[in-house]
Amino acid sequence: MEVLAGGGVTTAKGFRAGAVAAGIKKSGDLDLSIVWSDYPARVAGVFTQNKVRAAPVLLSEERVRRRQARGVVVNAGNANACTADQGLANAREMAQLTAAKLGVDADDVVVASTGVIGVQLPMEKIRAGIQSIDLSPDGGARAARAIMTTDLRPKERAVRLTIDGRQGTIGGMAKGSGMIHPNMATMLAFITTDAAVDPIFLQTALREATNVSFNMISVDGDTSTNDTLLVFANGAAGNGLIREGTADAAAFQEALNDVAIDLAKAVARDGEGATKLIEMQVTGAESSEDARKAARAVVSSSLFKAAVYGADPNWGRILCALGYSGANVDAARADIRIGDVYLMRGGEIQSFDRAAAVAQMAGPDVLVSAHLHLGDASARAWGCDLTEGYVDINGRYTT
Amino acid sequence: MEVLAGGGVTTAKGFRAGAVAAGIKKSGDLDLSIVWSDYPARVAGVFTQNKVRAAPVLLSEERVRRRQARGVVVNAGNANACTADQGLANAREMAQLTAAKLGVDADDVVVASTGVIGVQLPMEKIRAGIQSIDLSPDGGARAARAIMTTDLRPKERAVRLTIDGRQGTIGGMAKGSGMIHPNMATMLAFITTDAAVDPIFLQTALREATNVSFNMISVDGDTSTNDTLLVFANGAAGNGLIREGTADAAAFQEALNDVAIDLAKAVARDGEGATKLIEMQVTGAESSEDARKAARAVVSSSLFKAAVYGADPNWGRILCALGYSGANVDAARADIRIGDVYLMRGGEIQSFDRAAAVAQMAGPDVLVSAHLHLGDASARAWGCDLTEGYVDINGRYTT
Repeated sequence: MEVLAGGGVTTAKGFRAGAVAAGIKKSGDLDLSIVWSDYPARVAGVFTQNKVRAAPVLLSEERVRRRQARGVVVNAGNANACTADQGLANAREMAQLTAAKLGVDADDVVVASTGVIGVQLPMEKIRAGIQSIDLSPDGGARAARAIMTTDLRPKERAVRLTIDGRQGTIGGMAKGSGMIHPNMATMLAFITTDAAVDPIFLQTALREATNVSFNMISVDGDTSTNDTLLVFANGAAGNGLIREGTADAAAFQEALNDVAIDLAKAVARDGEGATKLIEMQVTGAESSEDARKAARAVVSSSLFKAAVYGADPNWGRILCALGYSGANVDAARADIRIGDVYLMRGGEIQSFDRAAAVAQMAGPDVLVSAHLHLGDASARAWGCDLTEGYVDINGRYTT
Repeated sequence: MEVLAGGGVTTAKGFRAGAVAAGIKKSGDLDLSIVWSDYPARVAGVFTQNKVRAAPVLLSEERVRRRQARGVVVNAGNANACTADQGLANAREMAQLTAAKLGVDADDVVVASTGVIGVQLPMEKIRAGIQSIDLSPDGGARAARAIMTTDLRPKERAVRLTIDGRQGTIGGMAKGSGMIHPNMATMLAFITTDAAVDPIFLQTALREATNVSFNMISVDGDTSTNDTLLVFANGAAGNGLIREGTADAAAFQEALNDVAIDLAKAVARDGEGATKLIEMQVTGAESSEDARKAARAVVSSSLFKAAVYGADPNWGRILCALGYSGANVDAARADIRIGDVYLMRGGEIQSFDRAAAVAQMAGPDVLVSAHLHLGDASARAWGCDLTEGYVDINGRYTT
């Protein structure tokens, strides 16, 4: 597997993308985009677990069940959430307009939205915008900017792998947890691959990739009404179909995980007001579920997030979060490290070199690890520090 | 039931308390206290669910299982957590010294600690401190100050009720979720009553009171290693024993709930950096568990807490938190109000008077309510706003 510098959602063969500034965002920035496969593609999706689900989520979930689609149309600036029947009709029309423009059935188009909730989409602008989008094989970077809301940086990743003797590519883009005017954060991610993939395995693989990536990040613990993660596989690489349980499936899974993890980390790093990415590694847990709970609890702890901001090697807050995570934890056995500095070893607090520990927390990447010494399971989770900036953005801001 | 102004942990008959500045806190403030019953008392307790449990929690949990005790010795400034065997020996010695001073068995003394973790107790100071404590029937206010850490205000409450034709009193004190130098927040609460209460019912009643009070508050979602809630009942009121299922039991439960809720709200209001108390009322939930989850999710949402700080009537963040709470929520039916201003009604966003809604969020008490229209269950939860002050205290602070 090789990382392709500058790669993104159109790096895989047979994918095009385009974006325009349709006027949905007040800023006049790019806000409407299409990602498109030149060939019929398999699709898999993972959607928000929030009981309050936006219209595009309801529509797309239904369409993804067919396991085939040609592409997705995405707008930023308006989430089309809490918009009742009119919202659903508007989401359908977005798909219909895109399908008509590109000569396919409306069922082959998936829809995603992010932005303000409770406001109907400005359909005149969206109709004109969809018409004016030009799709191109190097349109990925533009599309990655068009899905941003308060994200500070676009988020793209692509990797190349060999499958069945052919070169295959997986690429993608995501938008993060910047707070959206005026209501909530939405996580959107779109991944494309030119590998030919069995559609049942594609869904399983996406679920697995989500579990080790987007489900292991926390910015503020709030899950939005619009979270959507899609993967399209169009087979343009010419490989024999990847089926579950094969060596090719394992290689594909590894590459898909890499793309998903890289995008998820970029989302965590770009959390509102964040200055640092926190990676929490838990090893020696009794079960995988315990490892996941323990890792997530630490990156979700407001107390520890604030300590990271202040570069304070506060092992007490780490141990405390491990303790209430729900995972089995024996404080008398645990090791805790920040970078390579042991703060606690076998349950004993170390008289560590404070300056060295602080130095490990001074940069933009803070690695914390805990060995629980209770089993063989491990997990990683990512989060960001809690800063005055978060409060400024979300508290001072007025709808 | 009547609230007794200025009442606290020694308002009930036959209870005394005292406190000294033993030098455990660097500030020189009161830090060591005893709450004592002149008569043998029944005791019930609820302890932290954190898997990492401090020595006094381990000791006290064991002693409370005997359902009888005379009192509790409490120190602030040092949590005696992560202190291994020496910590347990020190907790035992604190109880032993108190028992010897007051002429009872060591088993009759319960222990609680709050403060720094990972540091052994300064036993010389504690030995001298316990010796010098003077117990008095009006020592409650002093004891309430001695259990504080970074709390800004002491927290006390007492109520009077009639049981079995006699006047009974329930009073208590709590300390809150101010961040403790240097590690974590601990919630401690001690309640006393002169009612005679069946010990099995006393435990059930305390659990019930905790479920509607301390289990329904959130400051930052972090659960400490030391959380301890105790109730002592000494029977000095002379009533016939209160047994489960009687009218007296119901009256006692109501009064105990009142004391616990009042103390819990005081803890939430005094959260670090907090400027406002948020009360979330959920009605019309499908089940009691759903109502509790939904109410807790809203007061725990960093996004909504920041919005309350900025007095922003952001119904989107409320609806979003209800949606991911795990409770059954139908966005097409819900009503959401801030104070008496409807933001959403029957799932429809109202064109509400923004100035009126902002006014409801400007003061120190913000009431939010949601009617889910799915059943008859209800719950209340309390939290505080998220401010730059929280980040300052917990991020800028260096251990």
